Amino acid sequence: MEHIKLSIDKSLNFVSKEEIFKFEESSKKHLISLHEGTGKGNDFVGWVDLPSRITEAELNDIEATAKSLKDKVEVLVVVGIGGSYLGAKAVNDALAHSFDHLNSGDENPLVLYAGQNISEDYLYELTDILKSIEFGICVISKSGTTTEPAIAFRLLKEMLEEQVGKEEARERIVAITDESKGALRTLADQEGYKTFVIPDNVGGRYSVLTPVGLLPIAVAGHDIKALVNGAKSMQDYSVAAAFEENPALLYAATRNALYQKGKGIEILANYNPKLHNVAEWWKQLYGESEGKENKGIFPASVDFTSDLHSMGQYIQEGQRNIFETVISVAKPNHTVYIPEDKDNLDKLNYLAGKRVDEVNKMAELGTQLAHVDGGVPNLKIEMPQLNEFYLGELLYFFEIACGVSGYILDVNPFDQPGVEAYKSNMFALLEKPGFEEESAKIKERL
Amino acid sequence: MEHIKLSIDKSLNFVSKEEIFKFEESSKKHLISLHEGTGKGNDFVGWVDLPSRITEAELNDIEATAKSLKDKVEVLVVVGIGGSYLGAKAVNDALAHSFDHLNSGDENPLVLYAGQNISEDYLYELTDILKSIEFGICVISKSGTTTEPAIAFRLLKEMLEEQVGKEEARERIVAITDESKGALRTLADQEGYKTFVIPDNVGGRYSVLTPVGLLPIAVAGHDIKALVNGAKSMQDYSVAAAFEENPALLYAATRNALYQKGKGIEILANYNPKLHNVAEWWKQLYGESEGKENKGIFPASVDFTSDLHSMGQYIQEGQRNIFETVISVAKPNHTVYIPEDKDNLDKLNYLAGKRVDEVNKMAELGTQLAHVDGGVPNLKIEMPQLNEFYLGELLYFFEIACGVSGYILDVNPFDQPGVEAYKSNMFALLEKPGFEEESAKIKERL
Repeated sequence: MEHIKLSIDKSLNFVSKEEIFKFEESSKKHLISLHEGTGKGNDFVGWVDLPSRITEAELNDIEATAKSLKDKVEVLVVVGIGGSYLGAKAVNDALAHSFDHLNSGDENPLVLYAGQNISEDYLYELTDILKSIEFGICVISKSGTTTEPAIAFRLLKEMLEEQVGKEEARERIVAITDESKGALRTLADQEGYKTFVIPDNVGGRYSVLTPVGLLPIAVAGHDIKALVNGAKSMQDYSVAAAFEENPALLYAATRNALYQKGKGIEILANYNPKLHNVAEWWKQLYGESEGKENKGIFPASVDFTSDLHSMGQYIQEGQRNIFETVISVAKPNHTVYIPEDKDNLDKLNYLAGKRVDEVNKMAELGTQLAHVDGGVPNLKIEMPQLNEFYLGELLYFFEIACGVSGYILDVNPFDQPGVEAYKSNMFALLEKPGFEEESAKIKERL
Repeated sequence: MEHIKLSIDKSLNFVSKEEIFKFEESSKKHLISLHEGTGKGNDFVGWVDLPSRITEAELNDIEATAKSLKDKVEVLVVVGIGGSYLGAKAVNDALAHSFDHLNSGDENPLVLYAGQNISEDYLYELTDILKSIEFGICVISKSGTTTEPAIAFRLLKEMLEEQVGKEEARERIVAITDESKGALRTLADQEGYKTFVIPDNVGGRYSVLTPVGLLPIAVAGHDIKALVNGAKSMQDYSVAAAFEENPALLYAATRNALYQKGKGIEILANYNPKLHNVAEWWKQLYGESEGKENKGIFPASVDFTSDLHSMGQYIQEGQRNIFETVISVAKPNHTVYIPEDKDNLDKLNYLAGKRVDEVNKMAELGTQLAHVDGGVPNLKIEMPQLNEFYLGELLYFFEIACGVSGYILDVNPFDQPGVEAYKSNMFALLEKPGFEEESAKIKERL
């Protein structure tokens, strides 16, 4: 069995093996506390053995629900924000046709997103488009009262009920929410929506392998069993593999060693634009897990080679406080050869007959060497192929490494105390019932 | 005449007025050297008076070409990378329907992009889709030999010629390139393509208001005259306005003052996802202009409120070396009211009857206060509306501020010496003719 691989050799000019291996014992210990639930934030480590815990029956239920939606709708609108949005988007975009919206050959519903912003124009244009489309809704919220998805769901639910009637709307709405409490659970039970449960001990950013991610991924036509199998494969491997071959432990150790050497920004790079939203998911995972107590690596991302013509100059010669982690897909899913041209004005004939990916790979290698020469440590994560299985490995790899990395940094990687600050100001400004005191205070301040 | 406005008051807890105003004289001086072409990199300041220099006849020619393409094609593929890609994409995405690909009401061609990466799957899927679509090509390259666009253009040109014949293909290909030299100029003259010129004294990242940006923007159906007028309005205003009311000078001064206080990361935030690619364009503009000599502010971006549920935690409580610049659009282009719900399970009735944007604005204000409380200086750029005119103002504002800011930082904001490094490694690895020595060297190294 091949796994995704991590190479750290292009970091070893900047940090010694000793400086990385000094975290060997602690990272192993942290991995055990994640599995045993004995570390910080241990109420939220339900994701650690999720890949091996999820049952065939649960996956079948998700697939059956996806199938019944597929039979009814052209578009599924996923209503959610943060972890209830980024995981599904990351996987769906990684596996979708690059021009999914134009790809009339795909019989699966198009998955669109709402409730991930409060843009009036976005909601207007979404509802405008949906007027002439058969659509369904997958609403994802633990409480059902988070402002962004709650606004979008009110609008979309009303619209769907008008369009197809209350009864048919019930058949097209799936709620993913708390097992027993909260506004969305109450509504779903009242209306008889099909529901799935967000486990109590899994936080939003670690929820992609629960129904939160799996249902929208299944509706888009992807193989969720392969995704979960990939995650399970990495779950097992991260427990079994020796430190020096253990991508998760090695990643956690190396990035902390680099951070201690003043590398405060990590840039996640890809050479396949389909991975763009994997980086957005990763930013939440790492930024929200580690960015606290005035510390943590700042997560940024680039799509190469596009952004070599944008951020490339900075990476090559700007402030030397960055390191780079490259996700490389070994084998493309399609084949394109560069054609010969008899005039050869563009002087590309030296590439004629080569696959496009050969050039991409040399761009990748050339860039890594250039960046290392410029003072930017490089890590490389190699995926054998961009498919469900290896995406499952990649997601779990990042999750388990994040838990270990957060413990090395000595923070609680499972809370997000800073996310409340803007919300309570917003409620105060909007005079939400219950925020009278805060309202008075904030108005005085303005 | 209303202009876009910059507020710096939410930075003044972190940097004093004096620390900002100490750059008053130098920023005025730098603005003059940009206009007079007496500063560093003065071979590349042709963009400074571009908005006032471009003629009605030139704009009419671009519009006429756009019209003839519109009559022929359903999709225009823009082939370019870096500045030959990001400007058009920024404006087109800012002005497009959020679900442009699904918006059958739009009679303008869809603008797609190629040559901005070397992804084999992307090129395969693009050419696959185009098989059943009437398409044209706008190829943008000074030299015609830049690897990424040259590969894409070879493939697409061959495909188009096969699809519609060599003669018709000539009518559907527009080349934007050097006035007299280079591979693409030679080819275009040979084939009789319609061409537009990239001025010698305008670098890629400052080229959005040349045909490089204007043609693809016109094809997408947007008003390029209003865009240029907006830019001209900001050109005039940035020369005339006093320092304290001059958004460009004030932005350049404030960000340098913050940088000197250790704020090494700038996050450009929006509350309207349509501005996502304006931030990508801005990253190239600032990153490539300032990221050199081991200095410069690291440019990053977020889409709010989406990313408040992702990067929000980090911004609130992570390392305190960041500041935030928020682009706020005062007035949405559409109207959506939040509906009343009799059951009010989601407890949103306190918002019923309000416009969605009112909530968005309170999220914005609440976030700014929260981030300032958390130690993150905030700047705010207010656009009256998201339309061609104010986008023109915004783009020119960022450009002229970037020139001034780079001069304050004491770098040449118009070169990009670091971008060559990866390219020459790539050529060496691919054994490009002329790189024999480098090939031998790099192979030894591997």
